[in-house]
Amino acid sequence: MKNFEFYNPVKVIFGKGQISKLKENININNKIMMVYGGGSIKSNGIYEQVKTSLADHNLIEFGGVEANPQYDTLMQAVDLARKEKVDFILAVGGGSVVDGTKFISAAINFDGDPWTILSENKSFENPIPFGAVLTLAATGSEMNCFSVVSRGSDKLGFGHPSLFSKFSILDPEVTYSLPEKQLGNGIVDAFVHVLEQYLTINVNSPLQDRFAEGILMTLLEEGPKVIHVKDDYESRANFMWSATMALNGLIGSGVVHDWATHMIGHELTALYGIDHARTLAVVLPSLLREQMDKKLNRLDQMAQRVFKITEGTPESRAKECILMIEDFFNSMGLPTKLSVYKVNEEEIPKIIESLKSHIPVNLGEHSDIDSEKVNRILMAAL
Amino acid sequence: MKNFEFYNPVKVIFGKGQISKLKENININNKIMMVYGGGSIKSNGIYEQVKTSLADHNLIEFGGVEANPQYDTLMQAVDLARKEKVDFILAVGGGSVVDGTKFISAAINFDGDPWTILSENKSFENPIPFGAVLTLAATGSEMNCFSVVSRGSDKLGFGHPSLFSKFSILDPEVTYSLPEKQLGNGIVDAFVHVLEQYLTINVNSPLQDRFAEGILMTLLEEGPKVIHVKDDYESRANFMWSATMALNGLIGSGVVHDWATHMIGHELTALYGIDHARTLAVVLPSLLREQMDKKLNRLDQMAQRVFKITEGTPESRAKECILMIEDFFNSMGLPTKLSVYKVNEEEIPKIIESLKSHIPVNLGEHSDIDSEKVNRILMAAL
Repeated sequence: MKNFEFYNPVKVIFGKGQISKLKENININNKIMMVYGGGSIKSNGIYEQVKTSLADHNLIEFGGVEANPQYDTLMQAVDLARKEKVDFILAVGGGSVVDGTKFISAAINFDGDPWTILSENKSFENPIPFGAVLTLAATGSEMNCFSVVSRGSDKLGFGHPSLFSKFSILDPEVTYSLPEKQLGNGIVDAFVHVLEQYLTINVNSPLQDRFAEGILMTLLEEGPKVIHVKDDYESRANFMWSATMALNGLIGSGVVHDWATHMIGHELTALYGIDHARTLAVVLPSLLREQMDKKLNRLDQMAQRVFKITEGTPESRAKECILMIEDFFNSMGLPTKLSVYKVNEEEIPKIIESLKSHIPVNLGEHSDIDSEKVNRILMAAL
Repeated sequence: MKNFEFYNPVKVIFGKGQISKLKENININNKIMMVYGGGSIKSNGIYEQVKTSLADHNLIEFGGVEANPQYDTLMQAVDLARKEKVDFILAVGGGSVVDGTKFISAAINFDGDPWTILSENKSFENPIPFGAVLTLAATGSEMNCFSVVSRGSDKLGFGHPSLFSKFSILDPEVTYSLPEKQLGNGIVDAFVHVLEQYLTINVNSPLQDRFAEGILMTLLEEGPKVIHVKDDYESRANFMWSATMALNGLIGSGVVHDWATHMIGHELTALYGIDHARTLAVVLPSLLREQMDKKLNRLDQMAQRVFKITEGTPESRAKECILMIEDFFNSMGLPTKLSVYKVNEEEIPKIIESLKSHIPVNLGEHSDIDSEKVNRILMAAL
């Protein structure tokens, strides 16, 4: 196990009817800005639950944050918050709204061009505290301090320990109204978050391994129920908690990380507007095959422990493991081929160029994924 | 899954050489009281590492906290802290020193008789912040907000969310100097902590189950290496992290708890001075047999998933599971019979009387363990 620091002060309030606890978790003297997305919270009852709980609080609203939160939109929220002297933000939405809220929180008191927080990793002071009501299980943003923001063809991440949510309310019932596509995306997103921290280098971390495998097995079991059984509280709850645990720092403590799939995927979202999880479903299997020699032992461990494949050789089990991952993504409604999105061979140089402009170093846990490898990964993913 | 709240703001600083980070984790203006136990930290080099890192800090010392921290001793520390206007406490020790520090922290600014914090669950304000350097993996106190304090034949617990450590430094190397007995105690203590939250009622919580099973399997694998392989960093690290995760609120979120073994065990420690973990090793197997009808499905799940017992019936697997648990405790050097400690049948009414005086209600996840059942459990444990 590697040395590590683990710190996660988010208060998670989990379960049925918990949105009603908002009022006791935000000081009555706060000037609150509620941030949300495209307005689905108004048709599914969540907006009403929030307003009811905070009926006595001082609340303004900012709606319209996009699925990949756009810098220009977030800056409108920053302007409003500055003007209204907001001192608490309430994110009501999925990962994009929470990510966007983190940026708004950091930008409000930032002296200078807030874009440089993203583009130059500029440090910021006195972020505005915020809480979250999660409406979509997927990204883990409700229990980590990272954020991804988009501007044109730039999709950039940042993070800071001061950007943990004060509280995050996770009511599995809010997912009942989600379309199948968003549920499938969420399941695959969480699944790949685990793999980015698990299918890397063996550093003798049996507990982290088993926690990661526990999340994977739970997603494999609960995923089909989430997609096919309507309003099943238990499967929604188990999926929601799994997605949070997939990226809250816990399974990543003391181990080696990859994240190359995410870095390549971000370019596909920025250039072609493909949903985040769908980019991961396309890139990951191809990347695993490209890196087979380096990841063989971990893929074999996953094959045996997660998919219960015991026959064959390490090589055959590792290959079967990748096939099983692809099957799972497909069964959740996510294609694993880039051509589905009409991205063809001629686009690949552009993708690589954009990736290089954002991350001018090699990717992956061995820092060995260079442009040539990215080219092979994308070619094989077509 | 049940509704739950999860909150754990402890910053864990884990790994080799991390004690040197003390200086950057305590404000230079703090008046620090370092609290420790019987003085072993002076022979194993930990004391020196702490003093070196805090060479420029304002530090006073209080040594002599016992294995089961005694109220009278802790009150001496409270007096010293009040006199010296201490505003930060540094616990350097195992679970007892950290537990004792939590009580000191709560008592310093308490207006009234501090014993009532324990005896009457009196609330307290403005606890003094504290940090910890853990020297013994076992209780999880370094990452939870609970504490157990002894006074004569009373061994009482308390807890509050304001009593989380600001930071806890976990350097697995500090365990190299521990005697085999303390290592075995620590492994069994952590193992039973998991079982108190796992062998209860099935509430459809597959992720919590797998995390619990992951800790159990890791302790089963690493335990023998911890006991028999000298100075093996990896097994010490995996054991230490497992013990912390066994009782930091995570695997207990959203599930039903038991804790009857602990409640009965506390009486055995208070009355006969038997080490905490050793009381658990005696009580647990007997309690599991007494509660076999209620715990059958969970014992069967543990048999299959943790001990890989696939043959037989649910009943036979559950029975074998208890035998395997006993074997493990014995292999860690902990007896599973009360008679080893010269506690015989005549003592049992006294134990039950004392238990009733401390906890006047039935125990266990079904609240069905009454005095008659405790009697049968102890008789079978003789």
